[in-house]
Amino acid sequence: MDPGLTRCGVGVVDSRPGRRAVLVGVGVLRTAPETSTDLRLLEISRGLDTWLDEHVPDVVAVERVFAQNNRGTVMGTAQVAGLAMVAAARRGVPVALHTPSEVKAAVTGSGRADKAQVQKMVASILGLSVAPEPADAADALALAVTHLWRPAGALQGGDRHETTPAQRAWAAAEQQAKARYRTGVRGREQVR
Amino acid sequence: MDPGLTRCGVGVVDSRPGRRAVLVGVGVLRTAPETSTDLRLLEISRGLDTWLDEHVPDVVAVERVFAQNNRGTVMGTAQVAGLAMVAAARRGVPVALHTPSEVKAAVTGSGRADKAQVQKMVASILGLSVAPEPADAADALALAVTHLWRPAGALQGGDRHETTPAQRAWAAAEQQAKARYRTGVRGREQVR
Repeated sequence: MDPGLTRCGVGVVDSRPGRRAVLVGVGVLRTAPETSTDLRLLEISRGLDTWLDEHVPDVVAVERVFAQNNRGTVMGTAQVAGLAMVAAARRGVPVALHTPSEVKAAVTGSGRADKAQVQKMVASILGLSVAPEPADAADALALAVTHLWRPAGALQGGDRHETTPAQRAWAAAEQQAKARYRTGVRGREQVR
Repeated sequence: MDPGLTRCGVGVVDSRPGRRAVLVGVGVLRTAPETSTDLRLLEISRGLDTWLDEHVPDVVAVERVFAQNNRGTVMGTAQVAGLAMVAAARRGVPVALHTPSEVKAAVTGSGRADKAQVQKMVASILGLSVAPEPADAADALALAVTHLWRPAGALQGGDRHETTPAQRAWAAAEQQAKARYRTGVRGREQVR
């Protein structure tokens, strides 16, 4: 996940040892700058929930946000990164943080690559005939690839192994049950 | 709510026009620095949910976090502020952001008051014989008081009036039903 309040990139890849990584899904969650921050964050939180419930990932890689990136958007970006971490943690999915330069270096060989180079290399790595658009979508896929190719110990709380795949599957089933329940409540149906 | 990753202050006050504000509840959500950020954020998110479900506030006031506060903790603080906003927005509760100097000025008369002065004034305003401890708890109450005494238009999305008290009560009931359901799932009971 490439966090952002106006555009949050989400990319899902699948991989087996010794095989090329495969694109599973990619998209961008967008919110309107004229909407208040609380509602924008809620919208993104719901969007992230949908992605996680649909794909049940083994791990979520999120771009690490630095305060030194002193753009006006850094607070919103940090908040969306926080939502992504919570959405993963709520499902027992481990979170990995990677810096922008780690990502650039992993996919292009240079920590200073520009957005176009990242897009081009992501397309090449995943065997896509067209580069993912917009850059936020490509960045999310680049993060996923970076994590696949990670050195050991890159997980948040790297010594944390309390969730097994079976526990994560159980947590995912629980989330889906809750999602169905929520839908039921919204539609004012009776839950039996 | 006075956001923070290590200590997040939460204060609840009640008020009627022309009456003194009354302390309803105050506390601090704490997480351990040695825990990974994703799990700390999850813990705080669950703590905030509990406070909101218990008290069903009319509005949530959150301290506005600035990137310029270039302490090492600013990212975590921003993320917790984001979680507070989402927790409120998910329940249809309006969010107000107030800056630290607005809060200090509102309760002490000076935007540069120190923590002890804020604690002392909060105790005096709410008629408490002992100042709230720690400072994060007092800051959360000071934020609530600041919001009570606010000038018009301080709400996030100030022109947003789409939730009525009845709608918020309905949303709160829905949240409580979900919380019961969650408890049921955790206890592995069947939901019928």
